[in-house]
Amino acid sequence: MARAVELAGRGRGATAPNPCVGAVLVRDGVIVAEGWHTRFGRLHAERECLADARRKGVDPRGAAMYVTLEPCNHHGKTPPCTEALIEAGVAEVFVGTRDPNPVAAGGVEKLRAHGIEVTVGVLEQPCRDLIADFLLWQNTHSCYNIVKMAATLDGKIAAAARRPEPVSCPESLARVHDLRALAGAVIVGGNTFYADNPSLTCRKKDLPPDFVQPFGVIVTSRLPDDPSRFTLLRERPERAIFMTSKTAAHSPQADVLRRRGTSVWPMPGRAGSLVLACGFERLRYDCGCHYTLCEGGGRFALALIEQGLADELVHFVAPRILGDDAAPSAYSGRDNVPMAEALDFRIADFEPVGTDIMLTLRRR
Amino acid sequence: MARAVELAGRGRGATAPNPCVGAVLVRDGVIVAEGWHTRFGRLHAERECLADARRKGVDPRGAAMYVTLEPCNHHGKTPPCTEALIEAGVAEVFVGTRDPNPVAAGGVEKLRAHGIEVTVGVLEQPCRDLIADFLLWQNTHSCYNIVKMAATLDGKIAAAARRPEPVSCPESLARVHDLRALAGAVIVGGNTFYADNPSLTCRKKDLPPDFVQPFGVIVTSRLPDDPSRFTLLRERPERAIFMTSKTAAHSPQADVLRRRGTSVWPMPGRAGSLVLACGFERLRYDCGCHYTLCEGGGRFALALIEQGLADELVHFVAPRILGDDAAPSAYSGRDNVPMAEALDFRIADFEPVGTDIMLTLRRR
Repeated sequence: MARAVELAGRGRGATAPNPCVGAVLVRDGVIVAEGWHTRFGRLHAERECLADARRKGVDPRGAAMYVTLEPCNHHGKTPPCTEALIEAGVAEVFVGTRDPNPVAAGGVEKLRAHGIEVTVGVLEQPCRDLIADFLLWQNTHSCYNIVKMAATLDGKIAAAARRPEPVSCPESLARVHDLRALAGAVIVGGNTFYADNPSLTCRKKDLPPDFVQPFGVIVTSRLPDDPSRFTLLRERPERAIFMTSKTAAHSPQADVLRRRGTSVWPMPGRAGSLVLACGFERLRYDCGCHYTLCEGGGRFALALIEQGLADELVHFVAPRILGDDAAPSAYSGRDNVPMAEALDFRIADFEPVGTDIMLTLRRR
Repeated sequence: MARAVELAGRGRGATAPNPCVGAVLVRDGVIVAEGWHTRFGRLHAERECLADARRKGVDPRGAAMYVTLEPCNHHGKTPPCTEALIEAGVAEVFVGTRDPNPVAAGGVEKLRAHGIEVTVGVLEQPCRDLIADFLLWQNTHSCYNIVKMAATLDGKIAAAARRPEPVSCPESLARVHDLRALAGAVIVGGNTFYADNPSLTCRKKDLPPDFVQPFGVIVTSRLPDDPSRFTLLRERPERAIFMTSKTAAHSPQADVLRRRGTSVWPMPGRAGSLVLACGFERLRYDCGCHYTLCEGGGRFALALIEQGLADELVHFVAPRILGDDAAPSAYSGRDNVPMAEALDFRIADFEPVGTDIMLTLRRR
């Protein structure tokens, strides 16, 4: 199942708003075929896996399939996977987690009714994590928002002087560009935007020729007086969006931005504590974003977490120490908090990346 | 070799001042015998491994041995391991790293002269890390000092109010007690001592009946007015040591402490920047400490790193966010540092422990 989870991840981004699913066919303890849902509208993982078996001349009859999500039981863009498994003569199916979608569910019962032995809940947590985005799309109007952070051992994301210097290693930076390639919008707080003047583009190697750069979104109650000073606003003004206070959204600066093609969206709440849920809904419905990526700074990241808008943290620990209390921290904005009221996450995944460790975290 | 490294670690503490060494015997790609240096004065890892082979009825002739450190080539407490390997008829030896001790070295050449094929440098970095303590004991008069830290994702080690609340999970706390069992002395800074009133004892389960609790050492320029208020000074005054300024060491408070059996050692340097090298030498030569464990706080840890006295960091990352800039950081005391001047470490090892990640770090 670990291999099926790994395969599923390959479809991330392309399958939206479908879930990522991976499947392997096993005979005598050996993986003999593999498949994953590669793209929205294409074959489901189970059918890809059976197709792979056919290509390899492997007979699926009597074999066991491991699939991260319960095989679907309805006619959607493709016929039900349960039928494919029954027709193929698979003897046993191991399911990571049940399909929470009532329309597609019931696969387990259908398989069992046809004499296939079914085990549910194999590596369930990682399999559930795989469909966290899908569940969010089903149950809310929001984007699936990834908060990326890179911090030293003492939790610092920049020097006190806030010059734009990398904290993490080049391999970690490359991973950030993978995330930017996944995201429909890259979002930063005003402090980061004004301090770093970022372009917010994906500069991954070997991007496809039809790749569309993500929207660049700035969350701030302070609009720029001279947009032309900022790379993003100069180079792709029509792909830039400000989420700002209602007051700022009706200011002359907002008019200047709009004349250049940049969107300025008023958000409820006061300066420093904008309420962003509707902004993420607009990103999904007006801009077609399934995933968004927030890249700091620390106050903005914590605000997102406290507003329940951080669906996943990707936190790079760089094995370095700045040691300067005046430097900005990875997450900040709370006062007088006892340790017992710390915001608890769980480490869903960890992986060494270059000289750093990359942690994927989800709320407990 | 990975298994040999793992076995070697089992001897840590007991072999001092000898290095930890592990060995495995391999035939046809399968480990058929194992051994490690279990205790100072006992058999070396290679001989333990050959003894294990005999116990298991395995013939070592023609087999390959993987050993983390070059087999010794001199008569010490035990005869040379090279001779044991030659007599046993081992065909091939894989060595993690060369013996830096000129007295014991030359094993590789001796083996080759007897027709044994020798490969040097297998998993060399982890094998070198295994003997970092041994190299320090050989080349300096200091203890091997481990700095333990437990911090949130934002690098906080306590709440702003500094109440003694755990940051990490119970499993990580248990690991800290493993480290205390290894250490001859547990050392804290004055801020931690006065805020937490720690007992600095090892409370590991199943300690041997002859276990001697580590010394409790406090580094501070401020001595207590009333020692009886502090657990350590009340319960085991004669196992407590203050490293303090020369002024404080000649104060009436120092006399009170000494009358109760507590040691007060004057250190060069000024209050807040005591120079501690000679303190660690006294811990080694007056107190017989091979390993010491420093448990914070952040200013003390950074001072040790800057003085070159942090041989290993054991840093627990707890997947939590405090988010309070006023809370104390894991490492602090530097001002206006650009990110390019961060103190760089490398992650020598990482391991999930309970809900945390434990990083073992060494200077780059």
